[in-house]
Order: sequence, then structure tokens, then C-alpha cells
Amino acid sequence: MRAELTVAVLRETAPGERRVALVPEGVRALTDAGARVLVENAAGELAHHPDSSYTEAGAEVVPRETALAQAGILLVLHCPLPTGLRKGQVLIGLLAGADLPALAERGVTAIGLEGLPRKLSRAQSMDALSSQDNVAGYKAVLVAAQVYPRYLPMLITAAGTAPPARVLVLGVGVAGLQAIGTARRLGAVVTAYDIRPETAEEVRSLGASFLELATAIAGSGQGGYARALTAEEEQAQRHELDAHIARHDIVITTARVPGRKPPLLVTEQAVKAMVSGSVVVDLAAGPLGGNVELSEPGVTRVTENGVTVIGAEGLAATVPSAASAAYSRNLLALLRHLLHEGELRIDLTDEIQAGVVRTHDGRETGA
Amino acid sequence: MRAELTVAVLRETAPGERRVALVPEGVRALTDAGARVLVENAAGELAHHPDSSYTEAGAEVVPRETALAQAGILLVLHCPLPTGLRKGQVLIGLLAGADLPALAERGVTAIGLEGLPRKLSRAQSMDALSSQDNVAGYKAVLVAAQVYPRYLPMLITAAGTAPPARVLVLGVGVAGLQAIGTARRLGAVVTAYDIRPETAEEVRSLGASFLELATAIAGSGQGGYARALTAEEEQAQRHELDAHIARHDIVITTARVPGRKPPLLVTEQAVKAMVSGSVVVDLAAGPLGGNVELSEPGVTRVTENGVTVIGAEGLAATVPSAASAAYSRNLLALLRHLLHEGELRIDLTDEIQAGVVRTHDGRETGA
Repeated sequence: MRAELTVAVLRETAPGERRVALVPEGVRALTDAGARVLVENAAGELAHHPDSSYTEAGAEVVPRETALAQAGILLVLHCPLPTGLRKGQVLIGLLAGADLPALAERGVTAIGLEGLPRKLSRAQSMDALSSQDNVAGYKAVLVAAQVYPRYLPMLITAAGTAPPARVLVLGVGVAGLQAIGTARRLGAVVTAYDIRPETAEEVRSLGASFLELATAIAGSGQGGYARALTAEEEQAQRHELDAHIARHDIVITTARVPGRKPPLLVTEQAVKAMVSGSVVVDLAAGPLGGNVELSEPGVTRVTENGVTVIGAEGLAATVPSAASAAYSRNLLALLRHLLHEGELRIDLTDEIQAGVVRTHDGRETGA
Repeated sequence: MRAELTVAVLRETAPGERRVALVPEGVRALTDAGARVLVENAAGELAHHPDSSYTEAGAEVVPRETALAQAGILLVLHCPLPTGLRKGQVLIGLLAGADLPALAERGVTAIGLEGLPRKLSRAQSMDALSSQDNVAGYKAVLVAAQVYPRYLPMLITAAGTAPPARVLVLGVGVAGLQAIGTARRLGAVVTAYDIRPETAEEVRSLGASFLELATAIAGSGQGGYARALTAEEEQAQRHELDAHIARHDIVITTARVPGRKPPLLVTEQAVKAMVSGSVVVDLAAGPLGGNVELSEPGVTRVTENGVTVIGAEGLAATVPSAASAAYSRNLLALLRHLLHEGELRIDLTDEIQAGVVRTHDGRETGA
């Protein structure tokens, strides 16, 4: 990299956000490569990276205005995005929900990690959606265990034997797999379900059972996500699921379809059939809805029959150091791919760039 | 048991208390033996045992006054104890802090599980202090993991390798052992310390390391507890511990000496030397003090250097179904020992009774 390359890390401003786009370890990788790194005051504070740790790693800690004025490349996590960007600046982050026309008009090159071709093996080290889902899946189990009124493991003590918790994971993407793994670590008996039957093997390799539904219809879709089911398919599946849900103590749902309303997997009726003390964690809870009829993003409620329903939005931000470290590595991997001798070369014939470059040269790329 | 034996379960009234002394499963054991069981309205509600589950198990759900008026034996957890007891009634619970002279004067037979000879193998199924400590040790790790900003396990992902958390458990009684086991389950690297060197083997059998201190002085005491150290011994130990504490991410302290101020193990200075994001959970935090200088019972605080210090009082009550189930079994085991053909026979020459019977026949027994 050439000395004139200036990379800035901004402080996130979304409510509840505790992550930072680049951790001090990542600063060193950039300065070693000859870049100048600016870090906005207190950018890493909530992720337990004080300003001093950035200075020690070779960054300059500066006010936001300085970072915005001097940066060639700006690293962020997600919306709300910084305003006041200028022509030629490169913004890298998770840009779902961003106002791309406005960024294009300003002449900003906007690079969105959400557009990564996730199945491409050389892109996997850059896959921020996966790295953050991994954190969320881990935390979902801890959140459930925290409110669950019994033990997760089977414990044999002088006061008798406590049975293990029965955990059901719905949706076996990255978050679901990590939830399975974490619940298994804690000693729970785990069952999982996904409309993609090819996930069964991975589920079983983690020591969990795969739920075979009679109403199952294979639903593998594009880009590593499950496809959306038809209304009839969803209803038949839900009905059969209801009976299984009632037999479990903890249900963790993780089924999302990008940009669409998440499928309803756990109805109000299913929750009513669960025993008092059961816990439902909906990782898909968000502005578009969730997998659980009773869930609301950011809200924990206890139903009349004693079931705790948690609308678990943004769990990755609640494990901020681990999530930031992973995101930071994802960004560095992408930067390594994009930069050649200190210069960022946009080349839309490259499969990765074609996915992530959202605006360039005053236009939306249509990626 | 004779039909006239009436056992009542009261609703606990301490703030934050969610446990119940007898769960429905325990009701059935008593009714099968011919006893009549009264359960105060909503006694098990917060432990996820609704009144209907008691009725189904064969109990009568009644107002508190009825339970108090008709019971021969009253089952409770702990203070504040019910008032208005009368001569000849038997009160069974954890009676530390109870006004024994008043109970003796009223002619109540007060049986306190805290007085159990814990090392006696036939008493172990009755050991409520252990069963509740076991719950607290389990929950301490979950409470720490919930606020810890990194993963507990080592995780190898496409975004790189996250190192495992380093957990230090101070005090290796029942709570400490369960904390070690739970942290190990979650994949942490665990080290433990106790002034009783004979605990080392058990620590190692759980896959943890035993910390050998140069200043260690064997401190095994009576009744399965550690003995109190002298001020000099404590200070030397603390000083050496400080350096170890700074190298750990999560510290869980469990060192209590019955009826005495808990030893100070984690000084303010030690917490200041920990890295930002570290977590300290003090299971000994209570009215007499705690093992951690900065801890306050029931309070979670974050220090200026980013360390979360949790004064974890009463954790067993936060896993109310598991804790109640274990306590219930402890009570049943004790009742089986005390009752002969439906009658409770007080015999202070019996080693167990000599420990647990605190008042009888209008006098304190001096146990």
C-alpha cells in the first residue's frame, strides 16, 4: 500500500450497537502495509478497545470530522451511515437499507459486505453476515439458558437426577449451527429442523437429531439461504411443527430470507401448548416480522402460560469484542482482495467485486 | 404415615425469591405415604408449578391462613419465616438468621437443614445447602458468559480463530465445582484455587488446572468448609492471587465460611489490573461482605477500566425449577428419616437430628 492511503474507522451510532468495524489488531495489519489509520474518538470503547489500544497499534485517534475529511476509505458496520461523504471516498460496511441513490449521486464508492457471493470459497473469510450470525447463534443459547428455570445439562447429584433440557433449533444456517453446537456443549438434547434436507448431515455431525417432517418440501434456494415457501407449504409445516414445539423446553428460531418477511414457524397456539418455564428465542425478529408470532424485536415477554418469548434482535452486538474481531478480519480480507499496491481498483468483472460494489462512478451498479 | 399427618407448603415471601419448598412430584410422594398436603395459593407459581399442578398431584390449594392453621408440619425455604405458628407445629427450612428463642418460646419444633452433618454420607441426599450451591455455581457461569464480550469456547471459523476464555474459580466447594464443570462444558480454559490442597484432585478430574500458590497454607476446617485464615495468611495469599487474577478473563469466587465475613480474595487493585471486558462474579456477596472488594449484593457494576463486577446474591432462586426440585428432594429425604409410621419422632441422640433440630419442647437444643 502507498503511504497516502488513509483508512478511517468511525464510531457506530445505532442504538444498542457496541461493535466497532476494526479492532486494534486490524489497525496494525493496515499500518504494517503502509496505510495511515484514523480512528474516531471512543469508536471501540463499547467493544472494550479503548482509544489507547488503537494508539498503541499505530492509529491516530481523531474527532469524527477529521476522520470524515481525511479518509480515502471509511470502515463502518451498518446504518445509520455517516453523512457528508464526498466524491471518490470509499465506504465499506453492511449496506442493507442504505440510500444507495444518494451515495451514487455524491460519487461515493459504496461497498456492501451483504452482497458477497457467500458460496464462493475464496470469499468466506470476508463473509461478515456469517461471522455475525455465528455470534448471534452462540449468544441465543446463553440468553435462553439465562432465563430457563432448569438446568441445560443432565446433572446427577445427591439430590437426584435433573434431566437435560430439550432444545429445538429451527433453521440451520450459520446461526442455527452455532446454536446447536453451543446447546450441545451445555449438555442439552438438541433437535434441529430446516427445509433444506441436505443440512441433516451437518446437524447430526454436531450430535443433534434432525427432525423429519412428513410435510417437508425441499426448499433450498439461492446464495446459501433457504427459499421462501408458499403459504400452503408454510401452513402445513407449521401445523406439524406445533406438536414438536410443545415437546421442547427451549426453541431457537433462525429462519430468515434476505429482504423478505421471515417465515412464521412458531404460532401463538404452539406457544400456548408449551409447558410453563419454556423459552422461545426468535433470532429472526426484526422490522419485517419474525419466526415467532408473539415475538417483538428487542422485547422479552412472558405469556400467561409461563413461556418466555424473546425477540432477539441484534444479538451479535451484545458480544461486542468477539463480533468486532470477526468483522474486522472480514474487512481486512476484503481489503486485501480490493487493494493493489495501496490502490483500490474497482473491477466489476471480478465475481466478488460484482457482488459487493453497490455504487461507483456516480452510478448504482445494480449488484 | 397416618392419615392425620398434614403437611403444608407455604409461599416464600423474600424479595426475588422464586423457589418453592416442595414441587408437585414431592406432593405425590407424601400423599402416597398417606399424608394430607396443603399448598398455599400460588406457592409454586414463580417456579413454574401452577396451582393446578399441585391439585393434580393430590394436594389441596388453600389460603395461607388455612395452611398455617391446619398444618402439623410446615415446609419453607428460608426467612422471613411464617409468623403465628403454634405449639407442637414443626417448621422445616433453612433457618440461618431465624429468631430461634421466639420459636422455642412458642413451642415450635424448628428443624434447620443448615445444621445437617454434611460429611455424613446418609445425610447427603438431605443436603439443601449443597443442592442450592450447585445451582448457584451453574448459574454463575451463565451470568458471566451473558455479559462477557467474547466467546467462552475456542471457535475456529472462516473469520479466524477466537481463543477460549480463561476462567478462574476461587473456592472449590459444591458451587465452585459446578462452576468449573459448567465453564468447562462451555469450552473455557479453567483454573481453580482453594486453600484446601486436597481439592486439587477433584479440580483436575474436571479438566481444570489447580493453582498452586507459594503462599498457600492448608486451611481445611470443620464440616466440609474451609477454615478461616489469619489476617496475615489472607494478605499474603491475596497478593499472590492478584497477579493470577489479572491473567484471567472471568473470575468466579465462592469462598464462604458459615456465619462469618467471607475472606477478601479479589481486591480493588486486582480488578484494576484486569483487562477491559473481564467479568468478576462474587457468589459470596451478601450482608456480611463478599470475596470481592468492589462487589455489592444484588448489584452489577462496570469499573472505569471496563471490568464487570457482579455481586451475585441468591443465584439459586434465579433457576427456580431446578433449585426447587432439588430442595424438595432434600426435604423428602429428611422427612423419610424423621417420620416413623406417620409420626415425627424427635431423638437428639440421632446424629442427623442432633444437627438439624434447633428448637424442641420449648427450648433451643443448642445445635
